[in-house]
This record gives sequence, structure tokens and C-alpha cells, in this order.
Amino acid sequence: MKKFMNRAETLVAESLAGLVAAHERLVTFGADGKFIRRRSLRPGKVSLISGGGAGHEPMHVGFVGRGMLDAACTGHVFTSPTPDQIVAAIRETDGGEGCLLIVKNYDGDVMNFEMAAELVAAEHRIATVIVRDDVNPGGSKRSQGRRGVAGTLVFEKLLGAAAEVGWRLDELSTLGEGLNDRIRTVGVSLSGVTVPETERETFVLNEDEMEMGVGIHGEPGRARLKFATADEIVGVMLEAILSDLTPNRGDTLLLFINGFGGTPVSELYLAYNSAQTRLQNLGVTVARSLVGTYVTSLDMAGLSITVAGLEERELSLWDAPVDTAALRWGG
Amino acid sequence: MKKFMNRAETLVAESLAGLVAAHERLVTFGADGKFIRRRSLRPGKVSLISGGGAGHEPMHVGFVGRGMLDAACTGHVFTSPTPDQIVAAIRETDGGEGCLLIVKNYDGDVMNFEMAAELVAAEHRIATVIVRDDVNPGGSKRSQGRRGVAGTLVFEKLLGAAAEVGWRLDELSTLGEGLNDRIRTVGVSLSGVTVPETERETFVLNEDEMEMGVGIHGEPGRARLKFATADEIVGVMLEAILSDLTPNRGDTLLLFINGFGGTPVSELYLAYNSAQTRLQNLGVTVARSLVGTYVTSLDMAGLSITVAGLEERELSLWDAPVDTAALRWGG
Repeated sequence: MKKFMNRAETLVAESLAGLVAAHERLVTFGADGKFIRRRSLRPGKVSLISGGGAGHEPMHVGFVGRGMLDAACTGHVFTSPTPDQIVAAIRETDGGEGCLLIVKNYDGDVMNFEMAAELVAAEHRIATVIVRDDVNPGGSKRSQGRRGVAGTLVFEKLLGAAAEVGWRLDELSTLGEGLNDRIRTVGVSLSGVTVPETERETFVLNEDEMEMGVGIHGEPGRARLKFATADEIVGVMLEAILSDLTPNRGDTLLLFINGFGGTPVSELYLAYNSAQTRLQNLGVTVARSLVGTYVTSLDMAGLSITVAGLEERELSLWDAPVDTAALRWGG
Repeated sequence: MKKFMNRAETLVAESLAGLVAAHERLVTFGADGKFIRRRSLRPGKVSLISGGGAGHEPMHVGFVGRGMLDAACTGHVFTSPTPDQIVAAIRETDGGEGCLLIVKNYDGDVMNFEMAAELVAAEHRIATVIVRDDVNPGGSKRSQGRRGVAGTLVFEKLLGAAAEVGWRLDELSTLGEGLNDRIRTVGVSLSGVTVPETERETFVLNEDEMEMGVGIHGEPGRARLKFATADEIVGVMLEAILSDLTPNRGDTLLLFINGFGGTPVSELYLAYNSAQTRLQNLGVTVARSLVGTYVTSLDMAGLSITVAGLEERELSLWDAPVDTAALRWGG
């Protein structure tokens, strides 16, 4: 394994330092470097905090900024942030309107965010949205029930836009819960993923194999299949999503093709082309799109497809301005 | 080799179709699908046209839009676009103010863009900027003299912003020529690159080796070195750049860390941290930054460092609004 790093013990800290240095207009380290936060906190809005293990960059640190997160707490590679980090982020960013914690559904993350919420319960109003967008209902070693994967970006964008225009904590919480029924993601990987400290691959695929339904920590998926054409792979993936979401003709969807870190953008666009064509043939409207490498699993080769059924109000939240390291558009 | 594709013969066309579909607000295919152009051409401005072989995405097609390119012509993988494609782009986008062709310095590209310029010389005013930002002065099998690599993005951003605010063809040409003295790039690769049609790797590296000075087609570089820590690698790379650029204390630089396609963003930020620290220690100011995967070599693992010495006027052009698939900021 060849990685650009100095030492495994410091790679997360050095990478975060680079992100803050490259985007100092947008973000800064919070107290004692425990988290990354918006440089200019806006009074009068609910604070949105997320986080998780490192290795998924640019999520979540790249989503901190105007119109998205107020703070992100990063643990070590594939390891939850500590309650201590989350408490520090709550204390520094809550301007009195409360905090919404956006937590991917992994046991470690859920436990640590819950513990943090309990620790500050006397001083801060806290609500939590657990993201469960994976098509695999069964969970895995790391989670009970559906995992939170690339759809987390959609949660954070929509909730961030709503918080920015003054939605209250209970309103955000309701929106977040509702999204869990309307956002589904499925991933496929063409390679295992090598964790820097152990140098062990999570699984090994032969030259003619792919792992369908893989998670963002390289967790094994639904099935190990023979590698196939892009159209065939996309077909299997959309089938898994659409058996869950069952959109109706005329529904408006967001289609998001996400690279896992080792997949070139040209292949992501090719997959987008295949998926969009297939959805249009079903009579649904792909109203919004996103193609890029946003929710990763270190250098894993592979991609995920996220489909979100969005109504008019949510389409507006998607379109609202955002200014972060990884996602940037609007006025 | 596992790639998301249907057939090698159609992968470029399918990927471009995906890009246009995902960004239909911004771009559209030109006549006969020979190139991709801005959806809304602006009368009264010089048209900026670039292009080259596929396999470097999001460059150049992802740089088409307001404040950057008017059109991009894509050849097959690592193969120049034909004069015919370039002529079609000139005819469709020149609104009377002439065309600036931005061409990376490879023999095939230079020849085909020159031929296109000659073919339309009676009807269109054409100027050409040849991008030569690679630190390797000697060229390679593909080029006489310095190659055009990731610094091409900086050329296209600055020239695009200038064209957008009404600079004339001769003024743009002068700016472009001047940039060649002030932008330098060096790449390092940790793996060869596999070309889809041949399925042949350009070179093979052992587990403890890296290729220093590599080009964006996986051309061999200056030296095959032992793999080292990020700080050591960045040190060697910056030394190569700074022996050419020789910035003075107080100069303002743009520092651009570019991934080649197979390198995670967390590693790019770690490299940014290392490079920025080293430059600051030399007393120069890193006034602007860019970190991401923009100028690629299919799925090659590796990155390049670009340093550009920019004056006040060019910093403003860098900051000017841009609205393309891959680069998007400002009003």
C-alpha cells in the first residue's frame, strides 16, 4: 500500500490541517482542535453538527460552511469521534436556538453522539437525526438496521439550507426524519479498502468480481457478483433502490453518483448517463443531479448511486446557496 | 483492470453524454456532437476553446461555462481531437471577436489545433496559447519541450475570467504567453495507468517505488525514486519547482494540489498542508489555494503540485466568478 502520509498516527490531523489552511476563508478549528467549524457562526440559527470516522473525506469536514454544517467532528480512520469532541462542538456553536446532530447509523457513532447529547442536556436543546439511507435493511457488524452512507450528503445539504433560512429545531428534526423514507443509496466496489494503520484489506476481490451493496468502510455487501458492463451494474443497483423507493410516474428525483475515492470522474459520468437514461425510461423525472467524489472509503474503487424523491420545497432547499470546501454554488 | 464501462469504443461518448446530461443548465453538445460548448454563448467576447485527449477529466469539458471556456473538444483516450472538431467549435462559438485556442504542448495537439487555425484563417481571427507548465524541460516522446499539465487549469481560469470581462484577443494572447514563465507543475505517480483499449499499463512500479516528474499520460518522469514520507516527496517536488520559478520573499503564489484520479482527497489535503508549510517557511505568501482532482490520468494514483506566481491583476482574475461543472464559485 502506498499512501501520501508521514505517520499513520498523525495522518488525520495533518489532512484536517491542510483542509483548514486551504479554506481559511470558510472554516477554522474549534477549541483545542477538537472539531472544524464555520469561521463565521451566524447567531439566531440552529447549529448543525455532524461527524464520524475519518476516511470518508470530503464528508463531513468538506461540508462545513454557509448553507450546510456549522461543525464537523472527525475521529480516527473509520472510528467514531469521542463524546468530548461533540460536546465541545455543541458548546461552541449553539447560539441559543439549539443543535441538530446529524448522525450516520453506526453503533459507535450513535452511542457517542447520544452520550454527548446527554452530557449537555441541561444547557442545550438537542435533536438528533439518524441517517439510514442504505438499501441493505439488515445492517452489519457496525450497525443495527440500515447504514448511513452517501445519502448523508443530501440530508446535510437540505437541513443546512433550511437552518440557514431560520427553520426551528423541531421543524428540522421533522424534515430529517421524513427524508429517511425518501432517500436510498446502494454501493458497489471493485476493490477492497486498505486501512492505513493495519495495512489490512477489508476483503479481497478477484479480477472478475465486484461487491454489491458494499458499505463505506468496505463492509461486505449483499452479494459478490461477476463484474459486468456499466449498464448491467447500474441496472442491478437501480433495481435495489427502486424496489424500496417505488417512485411514481412524474415524481421528481435527485440522482447522485458518488465515487468512493479511487474511481475517475469520467467513469462516474458514464454511470450517471446510464442511470439517468434508465430512470427516464421509467417515466420519472431526474430533476437534480450531482456527480463527484464526496463520500469516500479511503481509496476504494467503486461508486454508489443515491436516489432521493424530493418535493418542491426540498428542491428549493437543494438549490439554495452553499459555500463549503466540497460543495459550492449559488449567490 | 476493472472499469465502469460498456465498450471501449463508446466510453468517451457515454461519459461526455453523462456530463452534458448532469449539467444541462451549463453546457450542451455542439454541432454533430463534435464538442461541448457553453449553453449560452455571450456575444461580444473572445471565444476560448481548448481540448485534448480524453482521460484527463474533468479537464477540459468540466471547465466549460461562464468565466472559463466556451468550448472543449475531446479526442479518444490520450488522443488529440481532430482538426475537424476544432474547426466546428471555432465556427459555432466565434461571435466576431476571434478565438483563443488554449493548447497543451503535445505534438499531436499542437499539430491539430494549428491545422484547424489554418483551415479557418480566412474567416476567423485566431490566436493560440501553448501551455508549457511541466518542470521537465526536455519533453518526451509526445512533446518537444515542456509538456502542458495541471497548470493548464490556471491558464484556462485566468484567461476565461479576462475574456468574460471583455479583454481583446491580443491582450489575452499576451497574458497567456506571460503565464508560461510563472506557472510550474511537477507530478508524482504511485502506479502506472491502464489505457482501456490496450489494457496495457504504461509502466509498472514496485511496491516501494514512485515515478517523479510523471506526465498526465503516464509518461515516465525524471527519476524512479524510493517511496518516501509525504514531507520528503513534497520536498523533492517543491525543489524542482522552485529551482525554476525562484520566487522572491513577499511574492504571492497560488498553490494547487491536483489528484491524478486514484488518490483520495484526504491525501491531497495532507500534501497541501506539507507544501504550504514549506512555502511559508521560505517567506513567500500562499495567497490562493486549490485542492482537488481536476487534471487526471485515468485512474492513476498520484498527484501534482502547481505553483503559480500571480500579480494583483491575476489574483482578481482567479477570484472572478466561474460557473462550470468542475469549478464553481463567486456571484
